[in-house]
Amino acid sequence: MIAEIVAIGSELLTPFRQDTNSLYLTERLNELGIEVAFKDVVGDSRSNLTAVAHIALQRSNVIIFMGGLGPTEDDLTREAVAEALGLRLKRNPDMVAELYKRFAARRVTMPENNMRQADVIAGAEVLPNANGSAPGQFIEGAQDGSPRYIFLLPGPPHELKAMWHDQCHQMLRDRVPRAYIATRELRITSLGESTVDARVAPIYTKYKHIDTTILAKPGEVSLHLKCRAKSMEEAQAAVDQLAAELEDELDDAVYSSNGESLEQIVGYYLQMRSATISVAESCTGGLLAQRLTNVSGSSRYFLGGAVVYSNHLKTLLADVPPLMIEEHGAVSRQVAVALAENFREITGSTIGVGVTGIAGPGGGSEDKPVGLVYIAVADELGTDVVERRFPGDRERIRWWSSQVALDMVRKKLI
Amino acid sequence: MIAEIVAIGSELLTPFRQDTNSLYLTERLNELGIEVAFKDVVGDSRSNLTAVAHIALQRSNVIIFMGGLGPTEDDLTREAVAEALGLRLKRNPDMVAELYKRFAARRVTMPENNMRQADVIAGAEVLPNANGSAPGQFIEGAQDGSPRYIFLLPGPPHELKAMWHDQCHQMLRDRVPRAYIATRELRITSLGESTVDARVAPIYTKYKHIDTTILAKPGEVSLHLKCRAKSMEEAQAAVDQLAAELEDELDDAVYSSNGESLEQIVGYYLQMRSATISVAESCTGGLLAQRLTNVSGSSRYFLGGAVVYSNHLKTLLADVPPLMIEEHGAVSRQVAVALAENFREITGSTIGVGVTGIAGPGGGSEDKPVGLVYIAVADELGTDVVERRFPGDRERIRWWSSQVALDMVRKKLI
Repeated sequence: MIAEIVAIGSELLTPFRQDTNSLYLTERLNELGIEVAFKDVVGDSRSNLTAVAHIALQRSNVIIFMGGLGPTEDDLTREAVAEALGLRLKRNPDMVAELYKRFAARRVTMPENNMRQADVIAGAEVLPNANGSAPGQFIEGAQDGSPRYIFLLPGPPHELKAMWHDQCHQMLRDRVPRAYIATRELRITSLGESTVDARVAPIYTKYKHIDTTILAKPGEVSLHLKCRAKSMEEAQAAVDQLAAELEDELDDAVYSSNGESLEQIVGYYLQMRSATISVAESCTGGLLAQRLTNVSGSSRYFLGGAVVYSNHLKTLLADVPPLMIEEHGAVSRQVAVALAENFREITGSTIGVGVTGIAGPGGGSEDKPVGLVYIAVADELGTDVVERRFPGDRERIRWWSSQVALDMVRKKLI
Repeated sequence: MIAEIVAIGSELLTPFRQDTNSLYLTERLNELGIEVAFKDVVGDSRSNLTAVAHIALQRSNVIIFMGGLGPTEDDLTREAVAEALGLRLKRNPDMVAELYKRFAARRVTMPENNMRQADVIAGAEVLPNANGSAPGQFIEGAQDGSPRYIFLLPGPPHELKAMWHDQCHQMLRDRVPRAYIATRELRITSLGESTVDARVAPIYTKYKHIDTTILAKPGEVSLHLKCRAKSMEEAQAAVDQLAAELEDELDDAVYSSNGESLEQIVGYYLQMRSATISVAESCTGGLLAQRLTNVSGSSRYFLGGAVVYSNHLKTLLADVPPLMIEEHGAVSRQVAVALAENFREITGSTIGVGVTGIAGPGGGSEDKPVGLVYIAVADELGTDVVERRFPGDRERIRWWSSQVALDMVRKKLI
């Protein structure tokens, strides 16, 4: 049973816009044991869309068309899929009435074009749209003896997701063989991809029945485990077993054993210890505070932050001695420590963090190049401080700095 | 002349990973007057990949295959494209020698598998890879009398982009009819998509030869103009003319007339006025400071910020009177004004910004629901303050708040 996801819309063929619905749908399809084999993007062209639909109908069992269900002339999904299936469109009188009602309630005359939204492929089931005017459609059939399920869904993510969640998921679950699939995600921030792979490959390659994927992005490596078995217990036990072995090998380099973000994990630990945190940051410019406060409920442990870009503010808000800045420079081990320790004292938090560095592209020197960052984490027992030279551009250097700072906090709390 | 972009790799069919290369390639292809008509994603399956290649070769003139050029058994792009073309692979002895040299330099024995990277489709030109070991390939031919250009490119973005920029773009430019295409992008933050469309549609629909696309994301609407003409001057004059009319209509709601971000524009204005800024933020939790400092050179005008989550810190860092918080609540017009005015005075900046609100999901009440945000902007002439009720989740409320704050600063600086 393989799935194909077709995103429809000329805007998805520009440099400015990208389909993201397919990531959500893939996750939900995988839960049902259905793998996605093809994804396509096609514009609002009747002939191109019909051609793509024709190919998809021949090679896939579950085909999801997204977008092109609106009232405008560019909305051609109904016509193209009907043509590819060799079926006719019929205007549904109940839906026409419903559309008139919608417009009447808004005291607006319905443009003639809108009637097209009531065109239903012969034999299709209509899927009401709780969040918009374009309904979805579902067609059940068979192709060469295999079952075939076709969904026409609206393109806007909140409409599509609600429709899938409320209606389509269960419809599909009722029709496909029951699958038991368990997943785990481990995340690592202090090791590189090749190091992680070298250490864990001997372990995960032993588990042929578990699908292990290593993915890397700047400052983070993640291990995705997936197992299908005859029961949920069996599948879960298998991924848990492998996850435990991987965690043993990687030890505290694994910051998250179930896909949580680093800031969530730091939040958990802080709450568990009834601890609080405050951050005084220069080169990260608020990113560290922003990440910590992006977590719901962070007001329970995050007291506040100081973004001390100018030297004057380093002294004013975080009590860094002007003489220290003069002697060692604003980007120095000493200033990072002073930011962490003094701001912690000022705010009365359990943990204080200080970050100072050169995010670039300007401001670097031979002595202190772009990418040089000092990060300090202070608590009542003392202060850890590291010097790092991060590669990449401004955004990446700032991101890396916040990753390392959060990971140092995590390690202090373990 | 239409293009098709094929992304190859099973990881691109998971919920965790998405092709982004195609956005870059689309932009560069559009510059050459080539529209992308199809995008496909296919996994590391020989038969699926061959089928997709076969279809693409029949319907498109420029076909770009990305990924699957590495040394492992999963890297099947060479074989599949050769099969779809009915051509043979030949092992290139120079490339084999090059690979041996690479490994020898690292004092590593080359695994046998790596030789596959030296397999070249008969008649293909080899494209050296400056940033990795997998070379690209280029095949020129014809299909039904139309020219056909096939590129095999490595998947990692920095390898692909460098190869396109350094080699492929010029190769294609030399082969396709010269196109003159000019673009402009206007951005608007204070109006909704339907309002913008209602106001500008009567204008842009008059310009049949200019392609106008309206895109919206939370807190922002953008208008993309594109015109193809017989000369660059003509194309540029056309989009500039339409852009000027649209700006006249939308007036100062247009914050950017060439695609710059809101924080960049605020930075320009601040520098133009030799002004400085500081921000005291509660619910945005550092996001406002982070956005301002994400701009290179922002240290010239951004003095610093205070992330004042706890009431204690609102008083300590931004001098908000405890009595005011007690009387009006931390989320109030008064506190927003005090944050802006007092923090401006403390830091000595030209402009001070204060933000306080309820980002949720917890912390709301009937009186002060989730989404309620007060934003104040102060300068020597006075303080503007607004009350807003933003829809959506925590992330969206924070984002909206930072958009409105930045736009208020922009309007103060005009």
